[in-house]
Amino acid sequence: MEIMQVVTSLVCTQRVAGLDHSNLRVLRSSKGKLSVAVDPVGASPGNWVFTASGSAARWACPNPDVFTDLTIGGIIDFWEPDG
Amino acid sequence: MEIMQVVTSLVCTQRVAGLDHSNLRVLRSSKGKLSVAVDPVGASPGNWVFTASGSAARWACPNPDVFTDLTIGGIIDFWEPDG
Amino acid sequence: MEIMQVVTSLVCTQRVAGLDHSNLRVLRSSKGKLSVAVDPVGASPGNWVFTASGSAARWACPNPDVFTDLTIGGIIDFWEPDG
Amino acid sequence: MEIMQVVTSLVCTQRVAGLDHSNLRVLRSSKGKLSVAVDPVGASPGNWVFTASGSAARWACPNPDVFTDLTIGGIIDFWEPDG
Amino acid sequence: MEIMQVVTSLVCTQRVAGLDHSNLRVLRSSKGKLSVAVDPVGASPGNWVFTASGSAARWACPNPDVFTDLTIGGIIDFWEPDG
Repeated sequence: MEIMQVVTSLVCTQRVAGLDHSNLRVLRSSKGKLSVAVDPVGASPGNWVFTASGSAARWACPNPDVFTDLTIGGIIDFWEPDG
Repeated sequence: MEIMQVVTSLVCTQRVAGLDHSNLRVLRSSKGKLSVAVDPVGASPGNWVFTASGSAARWACPNPDVFTDLTIGGIIDFWEPDG
Repeated sequence: MEIMQVVTSLVCTQRVAGLDHSNLRVLRSSKGKLSVAVDPVGASPGNWVFTASGSAARWACPNPDVFTDLTIGGIIDFWEPDG
Repeated sequence: MEIMQVVTSLVCTQRVAGLDHSNLRVLRSSKGKLSVAVDPVGASPGNWVFTASGSAARWACPNPDVFTDLTIGGIIDFWEPDG
Repeated sequence: MEIMQVVTSLVCTQRVAGLDHSNLRVLRSSKGKLSVAVDPVGASPGNWVFTASGSAARWACPNPDVFTDLTIGGIIDFWEPDG
């Protein structure tokens, strides 16, 4: 799993079916790369989280039918980035 | 999921069976890398989209038998790239 | 899917079972990285192709039991690399 | 599988269900990249380990329902990093 | 599939169950990155091999229950690296 920081939410009106009720967050990796993740935890901008990718991302959702490839798995209590 | 911009459509006469009725788009990442994605949403050149990769890409298609590893999941309403 | 150019065929006498009847091609990405792909399409050196990776690579083969992680999905009609 | 070194454990109170009883470790790759892995082996900070990623990470756990994408597969007896 | 060179075998006494009877090799990519692969072919240090990754790695093993994400698929007859 990767360690990333929540940047913001993603507003996306036109979606394919199957993601409709999922919260989407924009995350930033330690290298500055931005990704989009499903958030079943309720993370806020600035939180450090770890993410599950690949097929594990679907299992990390309450509904595994969501077609995500990146899901927030938890909010890290303490994290000092030094990347 | 990744955030990418639609560049153009891809013309590809000789394909393996199973992709015949899918629209293919060339996408560019924030780092300039080009990829090819199935587009079930109907995105236009210039649109910013997010994409599902891996096995999630198949589930994001109306027909999950399509052998894609990258599918457009939605068109982002507002996006300011600053990568 | 990625856009790559066919470099050559790969001669590989000692293989594990399950790939015996597959044509293998060496492909080069826009960054110069070389990979090996199963070719069910019949691409020639110099052709620009797009490739399916991950589990999609197996479904892109006539026989999905082939243990490939990269398969040529089609030959691109026109392509101007400018990477 | 990748070769990585254990840095520390990860404290993460707010998690999604399904990871509750797994030990999480922060690992560092030879390039300095940090990742989070499930540890069914019991590795200590400083240990060099190899990790299974993707769907293999779930099978490497005693309970394959854990939604991990990175799991420690073993502790390497001797390793001289020179990356 | 990737083209890599065998560096050495990996000695790893403490492993999770499920890899016990597999030979593990350390491989080096053209960029110098080291990885660990299951070797069902019997490759020797110095050999150039191609590897299957992801879920294909499990299918490339005689026993697909092995939780590998990288498996040697064959030894390349002739290879001139020029990376």
